[in-house]
Amino acid sequence: MSSRINVGIVGATGYTGSELARILLRHPDVTLGGISSETYAGQSFSAVHPSFKNICELALVNAEQLLGDDDIEVLFLALPHGVSMDFVREVYGTNKKIIDLSADFRLDEKALYDAWYPKPHEFPEGLDGSVYGLPELFADGIQSASLIGNPGCYPTASILGIAPAVRAGIVEPDIIVDAKSGVTGAGVKPKSSTHFSTVNDDFKAYGLPRHRHTVEIEQALDKLNGKDHRVQFTPHLLPVDRGILATIYCRPVEPIPEELRDVYSEFYRDAPFVRLRDMPPSIKDVRGTNYCDIYAYYDGRSHKLIILSVIDNLVKGAAGQAVQNLNLIAGFEPTSGLEHIPIRP
Amino acid sequence: MSSRINVGIVGATGYTGSELARILLRHPDVTLGGISSETYAGQSFSAVHPSFKNICELALVNAEQLLGDDDIEVLFLALPHGVSMDFVREVYGTNKKIIDLSADFRLDEKALYDAWYPKPHEFPEGLDGSVYGLPELFADGIQSASLIGNPGCYPTASILGIAPAVRAGIVEPDIIVDAKSGVTGAGVKPKSSTHFSTVNDDFKAYGLPRHRHTVEIEQALDKLNGKDHRVQFTPHLLPVDRGILATIYCRPVEPIPEELRDVYSEFYRDAPFVRLRDMPPSIKDVRGTNYCDIYAYYDGRSHKLIILSVIDNLVKGAAGQAVQNLNLIAGFEPTSGLEHIPIRP
Amino acid sequence: MSSRINVGIVGATGYTGSELARILLRHPDVTLGGISSETYAGQSFSAVHPSFKNICELALVNAEQLLGDDDIEVLFLALPHGVSMDFVREVYGTNKKIIDLSADFRLDEKALYDAWYPKPHEFPEGLDGSVYGLPELFADGIQSASLIGNPGCYPTASILGIAPAVRAGIVEPDIIVDAKSGVTGAGVKPKSSTHFSTVNDDFKAYGLPRHRHTVEIEQALDKLNGKDHRVQFTPHLLPVDRGILATIYCRPVEPIPEELRDVYSEFYRDAPFVRLRDMPPSIKDVRGTNYCDIYAYYDGRSHKLIILSVIDNLVKGAAGQAVQNLNLIAGFEPTSGLEHIPIRP
Amino acid sequence: MSSRINVGIVGATGYTGSELARILLRHPDVTLGGISSETYAGQSFSAVHPSFKNICELALVNAEQLLGDDDIEVLFLALPHGVSMDFVREVYGTNKKIIDLSADFRLDEKALYDAWYPKPHEFPEGLDGSVYGLPELFADGIQSASLIGNPGCYPTASILGIAPAVRAGIVEPDIIVDAKSGVTGAGVKPKSSTHFSTVNDDFKAYGLPRHRHTVEIEQALDKLNGKDHRVQFTPHLLPVDRGILATIYCRPVEPIPEELRDVYSEFYRDAPFVRLRDMPPSIKDVRGTNYCDIYAYYDGRSHKLIILSVIDNLVKGAAGQAVQNLNLIAGFEPTSGLEHIPIRP
Repeated sequence: MSSRINVGIVGATGYTGSELARILLRHPDVTLGGISSETYAGQSFSAVHPSFKNICELALVNAEQLLGDDDIEVLFLALPHGVSMDFVREVYGTNKKIIDLSADFRLDEKALYDAWYPKPHEFPEGLDGSVYGLPELFADGIQSASLIGNPGCYPTASILGIAPAVRAGIVEPDIIVDAKSGVTGAGVKPKSSTHFSTVNDDFKAYGLPRHRHTVEIEQALDKLNGKDHRVQFTPHLLPVDRGILATIYCRPVEPIPEELRDVYSEFYRDAPFVRLRDMPPSIKDVRGTNYCDIYAYYDGRSHKLIILSVIDNLVKGAAGQAVQNLNLIAGFEPTSGLEHIPIRP
Repeated sequence: MSSRINVGIVGATGYTGSELARILLRHPDVTLGGISSETYAGQSFSAVHPSFKNICELALVNAEQLLGDDDIEVLFLALPHGVSMDFVREVYGTNKKIIDLSADFRLDEKALYDAWYPKPHEFPEGLDGSVYGLPELFADGIQSASLIGNPGCYPTASILGIAPAVRAGIVEPDIIVDAKSGVTGAGVKPKSSTHFSTVNDDFKAYGLPRHRHTVEIEQALDKLNGKDHRVQFTPHLLPVDRGILATIYCRPVEPIPEELRDVYSEFYRDAPFVRLRDMPPSIKDVRGTNYCDIYAYYDGRSHKLIILSVIDNLVKGAAGQAVQNLNLIAGFEPTSGLEHIPIRP
Repeated sequence: MSSRINVGIVGATGYTGSELARILLRHPDVTLGGISSETYAGQSFSAVHPSFKNICELALVNAEQLLGDDDIEVLFLALPHGVSMDFVREVYGTNKKIIDLSADFRLDEKALYDAWYPKPHEFPEGLDGSVYGLPELFADGIQSASLIGNPGCYPTASILGIAPAVRAGIVEPDIIVDAKSGVTGAGVKPKSSTHFSTVNDDFKAYGLPRHRHTVEIEQALDKLNGKDHRVQFTPHLLPVDRGILATIYCRPVEPIPEELRDVYSEFYRDAPFVRLRDMPPSIKDVRGTNYCDIYAYYDGRSHKLIILSVIDNLVKGAAGQAVQNLNLIAGFEPTSGLEHIPIRP
Repeated sequence: MSSRINVGIVGATGYTGSELARILLRHPDVTLGGISSETYAGQSFSAVHPSFKNICELALVNAEQLLGDDDIEVLFLALPHGVSMDFVREVYGTNKKIIDLSADFRLDEKALYDAWYPKPHEFPEGLDGSVYGLPELFADGIQSASLIGNPGCYPTASILGIAPAVRAGIVEPDIIVDAKSGVTGAGVKPKSSTHFSTVNDDFKAYGLPRHRHTVEIEQALDKLNGKDHRVQFTPHLLPVDRGILATIYCRPVEPIPEELRDVYSEFYRDAPFVRLRDMPPSIKDVRGTNYCDIYAYYDGRSHKLIILSVIDNLVKGAAGQAVQNLNLIAGFEPTSGLEHIPIRP
């Protein structure tokens, strides 16, 4: 399945959907065969997003039309949590592969989903058959999956930052993630909390005391070394468009040896999108790209391992990672269509 | 009427209303006797605006309660255009004075209002009895008025910038105003156009080809020298919270003599809130204050008079100017309660 | 000494110095008798800061002139670390009181200063005689001090957030402070790291692994309960002008009882500038004011006490706190000259 | 000369230089054979710009080394005005082609350069032999040029906005350009005027009364219809990283017929980077791309033709346009290497 592939985007007009379009339209091995929007069906994509004028004049259709299109081999679902599962149920088991960017297929167990999300899961069969799409950790499962739960943006930055230390068994399972995200993480829908004059020149924590991404992070870490991790996750809202910085605090089992850097470089030896840095990375260093930049250091004075991990929440935290999963499914080069250079400044 | 005065704010929870509260709560001659909100009636002001915690714990009431409160001598109406006129009708002719911050009583004639606003004017009697509340130009009328139409933010910056030149008869009546405003000018209600990620790092013109403030500017200029002015007004949206900069282009009747500066300083001799500058002013120079900073220069090469005028749209463009009008009505010192120093940076 | 007082600012043109001017010029009990600047001596304050036009036309003089001015009773030093101590040495022991806003007199011991700052301390006598000017904790000492070391901005937010829990003995002495600051904290001098296009739409950690404020926080906490605290302090740079948010993670000695809120409200019963909040505070909630807003909650799942503490770094983190100290020294009302209402939005 | 080409960048570490690297490293027909920096010679590009880690590990060399490299066929000079001419003199007449991004070879006549720039032109021979590199207007000359003066960012947005109307002879030669630019236009060097806290949440005009770009715009317009144009050009500084919006005011010779749109679409029929819009464009609509989006409308009420033109100042206003010129010189596809999709949000 390494020839050119035909894909569709369900929910193409939100931030994640339009970012998928930005990437897929320039992917050398992909044809964007269809895009849907319930709100804007019938309009052209560029009428909704004038920045795509002369670039994408495709007409938006209804989701059903996309689901029934036999030419489309892979569907990206960029829909809200709780909505996505209904579409997955319709397609699951056909010859279409699905990369779902909502939270609906990220957790392994229905009980967990029901405990952390407002609406009980209505398609547990999909939950059983899905694979958690974090390629740096679970590439084997992804290659043969027909349903992928694309990771959340916060979990992506957090897990990639912690994973080498957890796998190496050098830190206690009690971990603090102080995370900061740009506003696009809150979605395109206008809310009082995303009004320009609410956010501009401001900064705050939110989603306390219990944010859903906590459990997604814990689940992934548990798989890495079999321990029962307990994450304190505190998200904050940055007055920026894109980008997540996770500042992670671990207590080392014992004073960290000088091999810390080796632990990380070995773990990410074959990971083209992870860049190990010698200095604290900034979110603009990865803007518009699928990179995750990581800086880890041990502070002997406080006996803490501090890890800084940055991603672009719309790319490595959503659309880019989805395309990275597509590349695995389709047998393309891992970096195909994802060779963007960060826009800085 | 120069003793302490009791005032109320109808619509206290929007940007303009809360800015009125910020100013009036520290005004040495004023008691804030009541505040209303249809949406939040029953809650305390600080529950809606936590930044006022321990500062203003007044309960929000319904507008009707405020209108019927005999202790309140002056009412500030911070309501949407088209809504305000209904409240004015209820109060007009009683012993309460009204300072209306909507556009409903800024124009002199019903025909003009009906031509530029979507809803026909329903209280033309108020229109006849109201005074346009730009104190630097119309202080005499304001002092004895019982209904004041508080100017729009764009017109305030524009008119104050142009007025001296127009009064002196040194420019053609054909004027271009290229205006740029912060996002608070668009109001507190979340819209797609005020979403942080729509506005941040962005800039655009809007409201073309015909913005309502055009006619408000023209009306004021016409009064200054009897000519029939024609203004080309183009507003733009800045990624900032507060502030308006109007860049104004006039064609001088003849090459401007060196007395240009005298024309301006003479005109604003007794205007404590207008500061004539020697360099282009920036909007942060007046942030949080009632100042209007003006810089005018003649470009002999292109034979243009260029005027730069900046205000804080929520203060001199709304709440501060309303309090300046209150000071005139009540016989207080012109700067009473308005002695803020700009917050910079 | 509760009559009107005459004060001077040494180093008046930086961010902290001009913020002092903003506050002192409207302080009802204070005359600003002189301001100095080495760079701009001879110019008027408003020539350097046009936002002060018509507000402060004082001429800037050399520091020496201010130090020798007999009419000035209290001197605010807004100078760089390492520079301030030389001026203090000159004045110390005269009848002038000094409020030093640099880091030179915050630490109790020369050895500590020498270990954490690049230049050895040259006036240890002043170090011995100075008082750490955090009024909520050390008011008694401040009242009779002749030299006050005004706290750093990060330590102010951090210590005020942690102090009640530490004093109550309910948390382990091993504490994590994940702090985020606006750009004014880095000073007015242009650097690559404060270029608009470096900072805008960006976010990063800096100052790793060992930031000087660590020891200042530890010193204050140690005084509260005699334990030896160990703080992991990680600062980050926010793309905002003003404001610090400290997110603090403590491990409780035992599961925190419901009396957590009482611990905090009792501790800050007489502290007019500390506001205990029911929801996570944002930095704009205190902008332009001397407030410190604090929200504390216990997360039983991860067994962590999380405390969120916000200040305006230029006010409660510098100039405002200095004036609060002045009020204590001079016997004024604690809130005199500091009754600003937050500028929001 | 349509086979793969080897190019070098002199001055690769400024904003324009690194943007050239971003584009050229992904250009399918180009090898980036060398990069220079006087300040950072000897270091790797990614050491200076960590966002290029794993993307560009080329070592920075001295300019002289690049100038003497026989393999390099085309040199991009991203140097300050006044400096560039010295390097051009060294290379001019060899078999290397030069695309100069400074202002040194944009004007046709030495007298004009000397009148508007601080340093007299020292290589007038180059001035005579150079071509103004605005491909939409002067493609014929560019194709065969050996020295190209790459246009300024403001002139690019302005000229492209006005050109169709001027060529069609429908407007008076007296034109107002009210232009607004992001901060990267001021260069990477830290200055007080580009400090984050100077620019953030602020807005102002600058460079009055006589900005050098005025004459560059006039020169291009004069070539279009032989008239003597007089431009009033007023630049403003936006608190954004990238982007220019020029709001252009022309007086039509007579009321503009409905064919206005045809005038523009005919003029730009073969211009892949100009997009004619139906609504006012915003600067984010073109961010990171070589597009110039234009919206023109006639306001009959004020008898003005208003044109809105937006570009990314670092791409179409600098590096992208330079590559567009390279494509012309080398006979590549016009859009080769320039098929970026705007990053929005």
